[in-house]
Amino acid sequence: MSYNLLKGKKGIIFGALDERSIAWKTAERCFEEGAQIVLTNAPVAMRMGEINKLAEKINAPVIACDVTSNEDMDALISKSKEHFGGQFDFVLHSVGMSLNMRKGKSYTEIDYGFNQKTLDISAMSLHRLLATCMKMDALREWGSVIALTYIAAQRVFPDYNEMADAKALLESIARSFGYQYAIKNKVRVNTVSQSPTRTTAGSGVKGFDGFMNYAEQMSPLGNATSEDCANYVITLFSDLTKYVTMQNLFHDGGFSMTGVTQRVVEQMEK
Amino acid sequence: MSYNLLKGKKGIIFGALDERSIAWKTAERCFEEGAQIVLTNAPVAMRMGEINKLAEKINAPVIACDVTSNEDMDALISKSKEHFGGQFDFVLHSVGMSLNMRKGKSYTEIDYGFNQKTLDISAMSLHRLLATCMKMDALREWGSVIALTYIAAQRVFPDYNEMADAKALLESIARSFGYQYAIKNKVRVNTVSQSPTRTTAGSGVKGFDGFMNYAEQMSPLGNATSEDCANYVITLFSDLTKYVTMQNLFHDGGFSMTGVTQRVVEQMEK
Amino acid sequence: MSYNLLKGKKGIIFGALDERSIAWKTAERCFEEGAQIVLTNAPVAMRMGEINKLAEKINAPVIACDVTSNEDMDALISKSKEHFGGQFDFVLHSVGMSLNMRKGKSYTEIDYGFNQKTLDISAMSLHRLLATCMKMDALREWGSVIALTYIAAQRVFPDYNEMADAKALLESIARSFGYQYAIKNKVRVNTVSQSPTRTTAGSGVKGFDGFMNYAEQMSPLGNATSEDCANYVITLFSDLTKYVTMQNLFHDGGFSMTGVTQRVVEQMEK
Amino acid sequence: MSYNLLKGKKGIIFGALDERSIAWKTAERCFEEGAQIVLTNAPVAMRMGEINKLAEKINAPVIACDVTSNEDMDALISKSKEHFGGQFDFVLHSVGMSLNMRKGKSYTEIDYGFNQKTLDISAMSLHRLLATCMKMDALREWGSVIALTYIAAQRVFPDYNEMADAKALLESIARSFGYQYAIKNKVRVNTVSQSPTRTTAGSGVKGFDGFMNYAEQMSPLGNATSEDCANYVITLFSDLTKYVTMQNLFHDGGFSMTGVTQRVVEQMEK
Repeated sequence: MSYNLLKGKKGIIFGALDERSIAWKTAERCFEEGAQIVLTNAPVAMRMGEINKLAEKINAPVIACDVTSNEDMDALISKSKEHFGGQFDFVLHSVGMSLNMRKGKSYTEIDYGFNQKTLDISAMSLHRLLATCMKMDALREWGSVIALTYIAAQRVFPDYNEMADAKALLESIARSFGYQYAIKNKVRVNTVSQSPTRTTAGSGVKGFDGFMNYAEQMSPLGNATSEDCANYVITLFSDLTKYVTMQNLFHDGGFSMTGVTQRVVEQMEK
Repeated sequence: MSYNLLKGKKGIIFGALDERSIAWKTAERCFEEGAQIVLTNAPVAMRMGEINKLAEKINAPVIACDVTSNEDMDALISKSKEHFGGQFDFVLHSVGMSLNMRKGKSYTEIDYGFNQKTLDISAMSLHRLLATCMKMDALREWGSVIALTYIAAQRVFPDYNEMADAKALLESIARSFGYQYAIKNKVRVNTVSQSPTRTTAGSGVKGFDGFMNYAEQMSPLGNATSEDCANYVITLFSDLTKYVTMQNLFHDGGFSMTGVTQRVVEQMEK
Repeated sequence: MSYNLLKGKKGIIFGALDERSIAWKTAERCFEEGAQIVLTNAPVAMRMGEINKLAEKINAPVIACDVTSNEDMDALISKSKEHFGGQFDFVLHSVGMSLNMRKGKSYTEIDYGFNQKTLDISAMSLHRLLATCMKMDALREWGSVIALTYIAAQRVFPDYNEMADAKALLESIARSFGYQYAIKNKVRVNTVSQSPTRTTAGSGVKGFDGFMNYAEQMSPLGNATSEDCANYVITLFSDLTKYVTMQNLFHDGGFSMTGVTQRVVEQMEK
Repeated sequence: MSYNLLKGKKGIIFGALDERSIAWKTAERCFEEGAQIVLTNAPVAMRMGEINKLAEKINAPVIACDVTSNEDMDALISKSKEHFGGQFDFVLHSVGMSLNMRKGKSYTEIDYGFNQKTLDISAMSLHRLLATCMKMDALREWGSVIALTYIAAQRVFPDYNEMADAKALLESIARSFGYQYAIKNKVRVNTVSQSPTRTTAGSGVKGFDGFMNYAEQMSPLGNATSEDCANYVITLFSDLTKYVTMQNLFHDGGFSMTGVTQRVVEQMEK
């Protein structure tokens, strides 16, 4: 299936670890829709994952980038401009990592050094990306930047731990920088708040299966898959959504607007 | 317990059906806090309920009012002014009724004539109340009007049926008229979005027990009782909250900001 | 420009009055993207407007429909099914009218009979449409219904008068029915909250020019045009946005997430 | 004026710099309402300000605390428990500082080292405070913690710079920790989103006067003063608001729910 929605467009995709990644699916769909891609990920994630398989398939260079490093970000953006022969049109920010969760720290006992790292990787990285693009005038007018987020930024999901706060910070940065980039160069910045998704990253969260089941039963259309998320992101990179900016867009089968479903009430009565 | 928070203040309380009503508790608490009260309810509700018991206890006149009638509303406000010897300070709007639910109609098959009546009773009645007060210059500067609402106005709770839409309309009227009354006479208008409460009115809703249990388990502090709601409303009638207006205020033990709790996830795993 | 995004799809467009209408532009874009269309409008609007010009251009039948009449709605849906040879895929609800504004009534002095009519035309019409489609099983699985709305449903814009309340009711219906239709048949229902737009309908609002200017200066990307709105709606009718439902989606150049802009602060300093 | 609303209660107030501070007014009002207070501020702020004048007036000890230091926070909480002879009931978190603003950095060019410090002081300090209280079991059941915030966390106010993101993080922490503390010990945590206020801290913001004027004209009741804010916070510390938790509460004269006012439209027409 291809509509040529992104014909002639160019963009960077962060975070394609393996076939289950939303970023992986998005890169594939961008390619199908006619876009040229640069892939990037953290050096350590690149060693663990299978990004080169994807790179070959969609004919994209892979540029390693530690998103907490100004130098790496500078290098990524300048090499991407070089590769594309100038400005590009879109970026997918699919980046997040919680050191405290990895270390098994509960939310009420997090380590603040780890937390600082979590915020830097998961949220400030979006600022660094946008600031670097702006400094290098890398994004074309009406360009589109999407960061993936989760509804824990609005409501509490206890197992999501400090990532909830990181996502709230991320969404604020999307608004704050989205304002600046719209004024300066008509670039738009939005976040997509996706259903819980069984990716390699997502699966690591404690109690993930019970939670996936709850989300499925609380979503009138069911949980959205990573393929569907990729399709949605394609529309947001296209020229058909030029006046959507600074928004947090729920792609979740209706979960966010559902207080309770019949199925959940019945389960609660057991 | 009394702080004299409402000493010298005067107000009208709608909807005190019986001892379980939030309006009943609020009237009692207002009286304890030093306020003079006028009680009102629909003629039919007055016959069913025990409002005269309350009236005697707090030394308040009872004035019947069909909230869908301009004439009744005019009479209520002018008689209240007469009783109080002039302007008054606060009103509690605790009014709602769904004809379609009463008739057993499902949301997708509602009768539009019944629905029109539901909206008139449950939502437009707030507009009629405020417009009548404004026309008669009945509310003192910095007066405070509270309407009770429910979170179904924001998120879907299927058993709440057409009342969800009525509450969304009610909350919009609170904002719209709140703006006008603030500009004109510094009167503030807010809605309080309360936990599901086992009142005589609330209990009629289908699946209410299963839902009460769900809400209890989804509220970090548990469901708020009608006594607690009365206490909260007291603060909003007082002079301590003068700059709060046009807001929808959740009084729900944290339910509204909770995506899921540990207890619900565990129940879903069964 | 065409991506064939709606190839093979069929749908009904309400509210194409003349070339400036968002509905008109949307109908044209749907046609360009490969869809078959049925046009509809109120009998009186059809006499005033130029819908037949559009009908000819996109080869669509025109079926008159008073949205406050169950019979008319039944006829519209059954004739559309007949025309399409079965189920269809999408509907645009672009319907709204305020009798009180037309009669020059201020918000604090509205006539409740007029208001009842305003709510029926502008909000309950969406319920009637969806209920009729559901009853007749008219919408295909994963079908998509969009209703146009305005941010006055969330925040007060005084000149918008009772339409603010009507839009709040409309958005609630989109959520409430969206839940039911998702559960029953995977149909999605969303509202698009568009910038103020200089349509023939919009221009009638008092103080419209001053307000358009304010919105333009408060939108980091500027006000969205009706052409852009049509493009956005196309994406929401397509198969690329299948898991977006029960949402209110701002298409407004960032207005909704902007508290103030530099330009407005400067103007305020004059 | 005193209602004895806080009779027998004890609490800590952060951030009373001088008479114009919201925290200063709140400490005074808490004292008037019958509470015992411990005052705290950053060592540097204590040297600049006049906290000892206040301390004397309300008979409160002053304990210096660098909110970015675990040790200082530990010392503050343990000394407070010692002073109070056990648990206490409330805390006001009125803490915030932007290093990038101080250094004149624009939002698109912030220094990430400064930003990390800004987030630590302005947002993570609330986590550190709550975690320390929980660890030391310092807060009594139904205790109440309030953090002051600003609407820039929801919508963009460009001159607010990185503080917007810090406040979004702060509000998320209030929700996340509010959940945990409610479950564990029925302690509630809320944020109060106050009108722009002419404090010594607030006045430093670029373009503050133009903005104060805009906010005044956009607030149907006008901007809330620090005295009014203190009054509001008193109600949230009292036993009358026990089921309000995890909320962001606007105390802003209606600003947050106002899209535009007549006065602003007129100014825009000039």
